[in-house]
Amino acid sequence: MNLPQKIAGVNKNSIPRLVQYKYVLKKVLASGSDRVYSNELADAIGITAAQVRKDFSLFGIMGNKRGGYSVSDLLGIIQRILGSQPGQDVIIAGMGHLGIALSNYKGFEKEGICIRAGFDIDPVKCGVQGNIPVYPFSECEGYISNRNIKVGILAVPADAAQLVLDVMVRGGVEGVLNFAPVHLMAQRSCVIHDVNLGVELEFLLYFVNALNNRGGKA
Amino acid sequence: MNLPQKIAGVNKNSIPRLVQYKYVLKKVLASGSDRVYSNELADAIGITAAQVRKDFSLFGIMGNKRGGYSVSDLLGIIQRILGSQPGQDVIIAGMGHLGIALSNYKGFEKEGICIRAGFDIDPVKCGVQGNIPVYPFSECEGYISNRNIKVGILAVPADAAQLVLDVMVRGGVEGVLNFAPVHLMAQRSCVIHDVNLGVELEFLLYFVNALNNRGGKA
Repeated sequence: MNLPQKIAGVNKNSIPRLVQYKYVLKKVLASGSDRVYSNELADAIGITAAQVRKDFSLFGIMGNKRGGYSVSDLLGIIQRILGSQPGQDVIIAGMGHLGIALSNYKGFEKEGICIRAGFDIDPVKCGVQGNIPVYPFSECEGYISNRNIKVGILAVPADAAQLVLDVMVRGGVEGVLNFAPVHLMAQRSCVIHDVNLGVELEFLLYFVNALNNRGGKA
Repeated sequence: MNLPQKIAGVNKNSIPRLVQYKYVLKKVLASGSDRVYSNELADAIGITAAQVRKDFSLFGIMGNKRGGYSVSDLLGIIQRILGSQPGQDVIIAGMGHLGIALSNYKGFEKEGICIRAGFDIDPVKCGVQGNIPVYPFSECEGYISNRNIKVGILAVPADAAQLVLDVMVRGGVEGVLNFAPVHLMAQRSCVIHDVNLGVELEFLLYFVNALNNRGGKA
């Protein structure tokens, strides 16, 4: 991952935990309770209660040993920190199978994210794919710049990824979700977040192997 | 995520951290050092040193306040715990754009993972796609059972995901990497690991928004 270690006082690694807290808190609220303790959140997420309290204190969220935290207050603060405003426009570079799959992905809409356009060097892939217009890659930098696009998805082969990233950054992109299994360097201030599907599968394989090694399956 | 909270004594949420420790330790080793302290690992990953020591103590890994940990010893233990053995066979259910993209994904090979076959209900998608044979979905359960496949990737639309999962589990799959943005329930002992691409993009958007709110861009 190629992210600044700290930004606006928030350690980059607390963000995935904030997203996890958000999901747990929504469940607690749905169950009818508005109180939660740091050890309950810690157990649900599998970290120490001290880590939960440290994360929260960084954001100025204070609990109370007797009463714990207010779930709705916590949710409001976390959602304000995560701040994914509706209507965030995103483009995709690389309209191969992965790019098309991402342009059709239903999970983005829930987060208020709108995939506006795709770009590809292959003229055959240009036109309309799924729900979005696809333009020649030569138009990518101008599109980003003219429409003030801040976030792009990189879905090109590993050997083209650095070149495509450089073009996107020149256009003005400030954040890239990178699916290419390669380490990239941004020349200007651009946050790169790698999605490493190999790591996700490795994580799953560990559990399956551990289940088998434990023996005693029915 | 639909994983058992603890398995073989290992808290499920320590696994992503183990994978992160592994990457940091490999870098330290490459830099020529064989000693590392819990606070160095903690800083690199953005958690507390107490959390690092707690994770390690669960695996019986003991440090020493003066000398820290041996990097090569730690790496050996963590790789044994993660235990992704070469030649792990995996199948894909759903050979739309996402399934084909996953069957071509170069990052899996590095982890010793081999995608053996794909399955789809659409006869047009059967035959050979990319590098793998694609069979009618009606053959999926038998294939899993006959070849003793333990891990599957779910790349079908959200509304078909539960049905397809049930078939895979009947065949004998014990772990599923789920890309459908929907919460699934496994009927038997099967670990489901969701890859939520919306959360990944939300995580990135936070950073970009925070960068802009911080102001002072050149």
